[in-house]
Amino acid sequence: MGRATERRRVVRLRDGLSTVRPDSLAAEEPLEIRVGGQPLTVTMRTPGHDFDLVAGFLVAEGLVHSGEQLAALRYCAGTDADGVNTYNVVDATVRGAVELPVSMHRTLLTSSACGICGRDTVDAVRTRSRWDVAGDPVRLDPEVLYALPDRLRAAQKAFDTTGGLHAAGLFTADGELLCAREDVGRHNAVDKVVGWALREGRVPLAGQVLMVSGRASFELTQKAAMAGIPALAAVSAPSGLAVDLAAELGLTLVGFLRGRSANLYSGAHRITGVPALS
Amino acid sequence: MGRATERRRVVRLRDGLSTVRPDSLAAEEPLEIRVGGQPLTVTMRTPGHDFDLVAGFLVAEGLVHSGEQLAALRYCAGTDADGVNTYNVVDATVRGAVELPVSMHRTLLTSSACGICGRDTVDAVRTRSRWDVAGDPVRLDPEVLYALPDRLRAAQKAFDTTGGLHAAGLFTADGELLCAREDVGRHNAVDKVVGWALREGRVPLAGQVLMVSGRASFELTQKAAMAGIPALAAVSAPSGLAVDLAAELGLTLVGFLRGRSANLYSGAHRITGVPALS
Repeated sequence: MGRATERRRVVRLRDGLSTVRPDSLAAEEPLEIRVGGQPLTVTMRTPGHDFDLVAGFLVAEGLVHSGEQLAALRYCAGTDADGVNTYNVVDATVRGAVELPVSMHRTLLTSSACGICGRDTVDAVRTRSRWDVAGDPVRLDPEVLYALPDRLRAAQKAFDTTGGLHAAGLFTADGELLCAREDVGRHNAVDKVVGWALREGRVPLAGQVLMVSGRASFELTQKAAMAGIPALAAVSAPSGLAVDLAAELGLTLVGFLRGRSANLYSGAHRITGVPALS
Repeated sequence: MGRATERRRVVRLRDGLSTVRPDSLAAEEPLEIRVGGQPLTVTMRTPGHDFDLVAGFLVAEGLVHSGEQLAALRYCAGTDADGVNTYNVVDATVRGAVELPVSMHRTLLTSSACGICGRDTVDAVRTRSRWDVAGDPVRLDPEVLYALPDRLRAAQKAFDTTGGLHAAGLFTADGELLCAREDVGRHNAVDKVVGWALREGRVPLAGQVLMVSGRASFELTQKAAMAGIPALAAVSAPSGLAVDLAAELGLTLVGFLRGRSANLYSGAHRITGVPALS
């Protein structure tokens, strides 16, 4: 637990000269996620906040939408060669009927008839949110947006030492940071934030903003929508499909949020003082 | 095809003032990979070099290790709502017996008995390379290393316009660029490079260097080893597990390769003038 960083010896090469010194690296270990004892997926993640990660992953997959549905989360009692628990397998007990996980559908794609090729491919990776993100009336001040990257950065404990972690932060519409999480995988950092919120009874996250340290992909946009978050902000670029999905869902997508500037790719009407992108 | 970038209208927000302008974004679409008609996985990728991506993915999964094994690669004839082929499903025909894909094992984890929890988790995500990476006698001059990032960057066509693409490049030990590929997913960029090499009959890639624009994860280190590449260089940080895997496999792992400096995390003996990290 708490193994977010690890120490290694490294040869530092500079102008052809080498020195040996200790270095701090982001930890990365596989986490197997089970539901009711059934293996669902394995994700490479930075250890820490594993229960949040599992809870958020289940939200993203549409398996859980309220904290009450999560009856229990526990580490399986696996051990490594030295008899030490690896804490790399988490089993979630979900109340009520658990349908075949969407991710298994999506990975395996039970269809194999060529007649459906292509047309259903995007549908196969889509999950459907039960929350009305488009109808969220929240408005965001540009000054609030500008402040988010520094606040997320300030909350990051490990990045400055390892340079190897993505961060995700959940903010109120006033720019107050509610939760920040880090991981070698940006999707894991988001799952950890959403899972924290689920376990706190805060989902759907209406009126709130998700900020990520890297790029905005289709997958991250989808995860925001599944948690009912109306605005996603990223330090770097979004993909074209992320923009398309955000526009379809009525989600505000902000990219290249740096200093006192930003690009608004969809839902610009939520930013005060900005005319809608018609 | 060739849809690596897409145009979108964006609201540019600067100091509270907004202007509307066109913007160039990295394309991201799902690609379904099939083997012998059977769906194997779906990856979110930037369209372009799809056959290379599929070939490289099959190498990484241990299903294919020579170009001769790939009898055919073709797009399935799926169409979208307008009757246009989506080019988002590729079927690979592999010669000889195809074993149940490793990735399906790894995703589904057929085991569910708790007795194996944890101890086998890392094994579950490991693939085994048939190439003797540790025995590769190649030596690399520091000056060659220093030159790689600029050469990779120069080869990138889309990054400067979108800011949203990862790059991977394959170099000779003399620093000559053999192949560069871009993608919204860094693992896809590497698969595209390795797949190109496989289809060119160049695998195993003994004596060569793989350079990536971002971080070095466990997965990328594994992909390098599966292609027989003895050295992986990254602009940013590696994870602890990537370093452990590289050390175990005898692969040279270079991180923070910027300007005239770099960190050598394993296999430092391959860099001329550097004493081995004992």
